[in-house]
Amino acid sequence: MTVEEKLDDKGMLRRQLMIGGGVMAAGAAITHFGGFLNSAGAVGCTFENWPWPYEKLDPAKTAEICYNEWYRVFCGSAVINSIFGQLNEKIGEPYKSFPADAFVYLEGGHVGWGTICGSPAGASLVVNCIVGPRISGNPAAHHMTEDILQWYSEASMPVFTPAKPRIAGELVKTTSQSPLCHVSVGKWMKAANKPIGSPERKDRCARVAASTAYKVVELLNAWKDGKYEGKSTHAPVKDYGITAQMNCMECHAGNVPTPPMAKK
Amino acid sequence: MTVEEKLDDKGMLRRQLMIGGGVMAAGAAITHFGGFLNSAGAVGCTFENWPWPYEKLDPAKTAEICYNEWYRVFCGSAVINSIFGQLNEKIGEPYKSFPADAFVYLEGGHVGWGTICGSPAGASLVVNCIVGPRISGNPAAHHMTEDILQWYSEASMPVFTPAKPRIAGELVKTTSQSPLCHVSVGKWMKAANKPIGSPERKDRCARVAASTAYKVVELLNAWKDGKYEGKSTHAPVKDYGITAQMNCMECHAGNVPTPPMAKK
Repeated sequence: MTVEEKLDDKGMLRRQLMIGGGVMAAGAAITHFGGFLNSAGAVGCTFENWPWPYEKLDPAKTAEICYNEWYRVFCGSAVINSIFGQLNEKIGEPYKSFPADAFVYLEGGHVGWGTICGSPAGASLVVNCIVGPRISGNPAAHHMTEDILQWYSEASMPVFTPAKPRIAGELVKTTSQSPLCHVSVGKWMKAANKPIGSPERKDRCARVAASTAYKVVELLNAWKDGKYEGKSTHAPVKDYGITAQMNCMECHAGNVPTPPMAKK
Repeated sequence: MTVEEKLDDKGMLRRQLMIGGGVMAAGAAITHFGGFLNSAGAVGCTFENWPWPYEKLDPAKTAEICYNEWYRVFCGSAVINSIFGQLNEKIGEPYKSFPADAFVYLEGGHVGWGTICGSPAGASLVVNCIVGPRISGNPAAHHMTEDILQWYSEASMPVFTPAKPRIAGELVKTTSQSPLCHVSVGKWMKAANKPIGSPERKDRCARVAASTAYKVVELLNAWKDGKYEGKSTHAPVKDYGITAQMNCMECHAGNVPTPPMAKK
């Protein structure tokens, strides 16, 4: 199954998900892999124990942890640690050995290059580790990743305000229409008239990370209850013939190129 | 230390690196953390054993593995598996338990959204896990991540041709001037006049992943020998006042916005 075929078959995969749900998927994975196994893959052994054990978390508590973690490890690792840290305390492995702090490099959209914001990038890692990748037979994490990117792009950010913020009160809110750090932080900086190094910009990004961790816990809790269903409507390869966001004009202005298309 | 302060202090950090190198950094980490520990972090336990044990790999062999893995797990997981899979066979943990296949979602620049290409995204994960994040006190992985993004953007891709390619011979080569999947694959599709679903485009992406895995092994081998030195010249926060690529005009055309800047 290729990514294109998968994206074209979205409707079918969603139906699988609606039949399966979180609890069913867990049972199927245990039956299939016989518990904690590192089965032989194409190269060496690859970890194939999906899904990871999950206990429902409190979204607001998770967001508070994430907010404070941002000031230690920045957006990507903050989202990961706020969820995996609690699950390590409740469950232990495989969370205990996961190198969450390694993902500091997600800061600034990958070491400052402004690509995908570290918050949805860290969130994607969390849901795909817990639920398992689509190649494990359950498309739920793939749909959750799509949902996270679309929610991030459409939300008035930051959504979450911590109980004891370092910058008092509400901050300016903006809608990025993009999962890219450069676009998200750039639109906020323009609206707030604050430079990248300002305390307000930093606290805005800490709150964006916290908002994302909150959203991820809501998605995972719904999945745990067997009630998760993908909502994303963006199918770029099918709709545009290329991997893409949905708002071509924002970068291409009046001159959107047409990619080579398959013959009908 | 914030990302901005870090980026402003790049010269200082590079000097630290040149004194330390891979072997010195390894010794320092063992002294500091006393071997394999999961020390208590801000939330739960966080894995802090940096660097991971590393044995030098053969770049060409790694690239061949990666090329074939692409057809199983796509760009991000292919790069990770091609390196971690071999290290699992040579060393075992922590590679054995690493959920490399979870990163299938990096495909198509994050589930098809065209953000960062999964090849440099997977490569960043590999070097930051092995060498350790900059917050562990060694900036080498941060610089390697910068080097990977810049190399990817400037290389005539695909660099690597496998011994037994699924598509015979050389493919069209293009230079992305960006680490974004959308830009990288879009420029190639235009030059090759091949649609996203074509066997040629798929094989191009498999070769890009293989080219990236080859580059990562070269960087890690140099680091292991104590000879790695960061080469990236892109300092977006310092130079542009925002997280960014270096070619503003490609998306902004003649109208590059000026971000709010700190008062001098």
